[in-house]
Amino acid sequence: MTNDLLKLVREKKPLVHHITNNVTVNDCANITLNTGGLPVMAYSLDEVHEMVRVAGALVLNIGTLNREQIKAMIKAGKAANEAGVPVIFDPVGVGATTLRTESALEILKEVRVDIIKGNKAEINILAGHGGQIKGVESVGEYNNMEAAAGSLAKKYQCIAVASGPRDLVTDGKRIIWVANGHELMGRVVGTGCMAASVLGCFAAVHEDKLKSSTAALVTFGIAGEIAAVKEGVKGPGSYKIALFDSMHNLDYEEIEKRMKIEMVV
Amino acid sequence: MTNDLLKLVREKKPLVHHITNNVTVNDCANITLNTGGLPVMAYSLDEVHEMVRVAGALVLNIGTLNREQIKAMIKAGKAANEAGVPVIFDPVGVGATTLRTESALEILKEVRVDIIKGNKAEINILAGHGGQIKGVESVGEYNNMEAAAGSLAKKYQCIAVASGPRDLVTDGKRIIWVANGHELMGRVVGTGCMAASVLGCFAAVHEDKLKSSTAALVTFGIAGEIAAVKEGVKGPGSYKIALFDSMHNLDYEEIEKRMKIEMVV
Amino acid sequence: MTNDLLKLVREKKPLVHHITNNVTVNDCANITLNTGGLPVMAYSLDEVHEMVRVAGALVLNIGTLNREQIKAMIKAGKAANEAGVPVIFDPVGVGATTLRTESALEILKEVRVDIIKGNKAEINILAGHGGQIKGVESVGEYNNMEAAAGSLAKKYQCIAVASGPRDLVTDGKRIIWVANGHELMGRVVGTGCMAASVLGCFAAVHEDKLKSSTAALVTFGIAGEIAAVKEGVKGPGSYKIALFDSMHNLDYEEIEKRMKIEMVV
Repeated sequence: MTNDLLKLVREKKPLVHHITNNVTVNDCANITLNTGGLPVMAYSLDEVHEMVRVAGALVLNIGTLNREQIKAMIKAGKAANEAGVPVIFDPVGVGATTLRTESALEILKEVRVDIIKGNKAEINILAGHGGQIKGVESVGEYNNMEAAAGSLAKKYQCIAVASGPRDLVTDGKRIIWVANGHELMGRVVGTGCMAASVLGCFAAVHEDKLKSSTAALVTFGIAGEIAAVKEGVKGPGSYKIALFDSMHNLDYEEIEKRMKIEMVV
Repeated sequence: MTNDLLKLVREKKPLVHHITNNVTVNDCANITLNTGGLPVMAYSLDEVHEMVRVAGALVLNIGTLNREQIKAMIKAGKAANEAGVPVIFDPVGVGATTLRTESALEILKEVRVDIIKGNKAEINILAGHGGQIKGVESVGEYNNMEAAAGSLAKKYQCIAVASGPRDLVTDGKRIIWVANGHELMGRVVGTGCMAASVLGCFAAVHEDKLKSSTAALVTFGIAGEIAAVKEGVKGPGSYKIALFDSMHNLDYEEIEKRMKIEMVV
Repeated sequence: MTNDLLKLVREKKPLVHHITNNVTVNDCANITLNTGGLPVMAYSLDEVHEMVRVAGALVLNIGTLNREQIKAMIKAGKAANEAGVPVIFDPVGVGATTLRTESALEILKEVRVDIIKGNKAEINILAGHGGQIKGVESVGEYNNMEAAAGSLAKKYQCIAVASGPRDLVTDGKRIIWVANGHELMGRVVGTGCMAASVLGCFAAVHEDKLKSSTAALVTFGIAGEIAAVKEGVKGPGSYKIALFDSMHNLDYEEIEKRMKIEMVV
């Protein structure tokens, strides 16, 4: 399944339109290309509706938001909804400031989102289960992620993805844990944002977003595992470079062998 | 010739003022420094006219444009024209949205541009020969690049550069094909933007922009070739790093040996 | 001392709030994480005051400033002052344009800054001693840095840091020269900006900013020395990657051994 979808991404080269933060934007563009998609970043209110219509997916990330950008996200999101383009939403730092919380809720009210992807705190906070965030970093323990993500998925009739050492994917009924990935991914700024780009690539090529999201996380996680054992990787700097290489070089057999998915009934 | 110009860049360390997209801006800054120039990024309407006056070249790139930024580009461009500072224009994604097309035409109307650099689709579209663009990526076949680039160069009395596996440089009369470069350059986000920065470095040190552009593309292409065979290069991530290294370490003998230029008539 | 402070950074993981340029923002985020802190970038007038209150330090960098951003910096700076959060100011390119000079002076008038960090030209210019800047690069000779930095520190009752082959740290009375670092750091765009992030991490964990600044520069400089001799480093591209790795891997014994501080009475 994962391999079939990755093959589709590589064949179709879907355009993934990002409206995202200015910190990790280059990483998002490169991981999209490495996965097999084509990245495009377009932010202006005067063009987002046009650009998104030819895209395979739209990724919205509020990491360095402002009111103007939120307007563009909503405009792009509505145009995506009309055109049937899947929307991935990464509510970076929701709960950390009033602006982030209000903007996230406004986007979710105005745009039909297909996938919400956040760290544990973000998912808990958006689900109304409380949570603690330090800047954009999840802090504290979250022992009931399945309930939080499940209620968020039900509320917005979408897929909720909670990233962490194990990633949780749910549509509010089915729950999938993806155990692929590597601890070094947390030592690099932007792997969360990159995951959203990969989710976008896969969402563009398959109707069932529970499946596409699982496949995306497996793929990115395995690239992360392979990168960690590459010769020349000596810390987070060289690890990030190896991650790009591994994503580009991913081999279908390797994926078959390493895939670690657990389905909770 | 290429070597003489590269020596001049390294000696004079021209300041290259960029008004550019937020995706590849760091790469543009680094490649400028690696080539021998000094990068500066300054975008505000309140300062671009001052900054450009002390620059050796101005690079305008509309990759993540908005109306405010276009105003700043035009202001900077006019100040560059007055001060005799060469202007390099990279019409990223022209044709993909109305905003991009209109903005590109407005810049070309208001500013005397010395070099227009685009991918095949962008050059064809700007020349009025039609073309197809997917986000910011050229798609489709272009069999008459010489005619398209030639007419664009004539129309704006400038140098037109069409990048691709072979780069075309023309002033509307003379046509030069540069065959240096490597296929991996297309696997990294931003090599097109970086090429414009290198064109800026070289344009700053020589009057004849056909020659300076050819020398810039030869230099960058050879750096790309050398990077591809470096130990430790295992994919697009490590390739990009090696490209920066190679550009910095470029050796005049190597350039002499590898240069691949074909002059048409 | 340096080691004690680095241990504190790694234990406390201070949140370092950046309002910074879009060229080196990703590098600043990564070096903050590599040092042991948590980076957050938040720019909007609608949230900076909230974000900074939970931060351990605020880093203001005017590398790609505009009037809106300066307002946000002042608002964040005032909130930082109220909350007792130390402020690090990097007046990138001051003197190069009227906007930069006026904005730097306005920030220094409105915000109580704990540390001003600049290159030699920037410190001299801000101190009113004259200086020459090419874009954002210090040019010319500066033979009386101690006097310039000292008068700047006295004027704003803060620590002044002048970066260069040797970094100078002063509170207007005591003068410290840090001789750690490597010449390759000057071949990479953004090491100056990164130094400000490291200054922020250390300022967050110690009251005495003369000491915290010295420790930060020693630490970053030693990471730069170690990176330079790493296998696989062949130029500025691979050097930057090794710098991130080295910062993350820094070993207390190595710091003890390599520390090069000279105290001027």
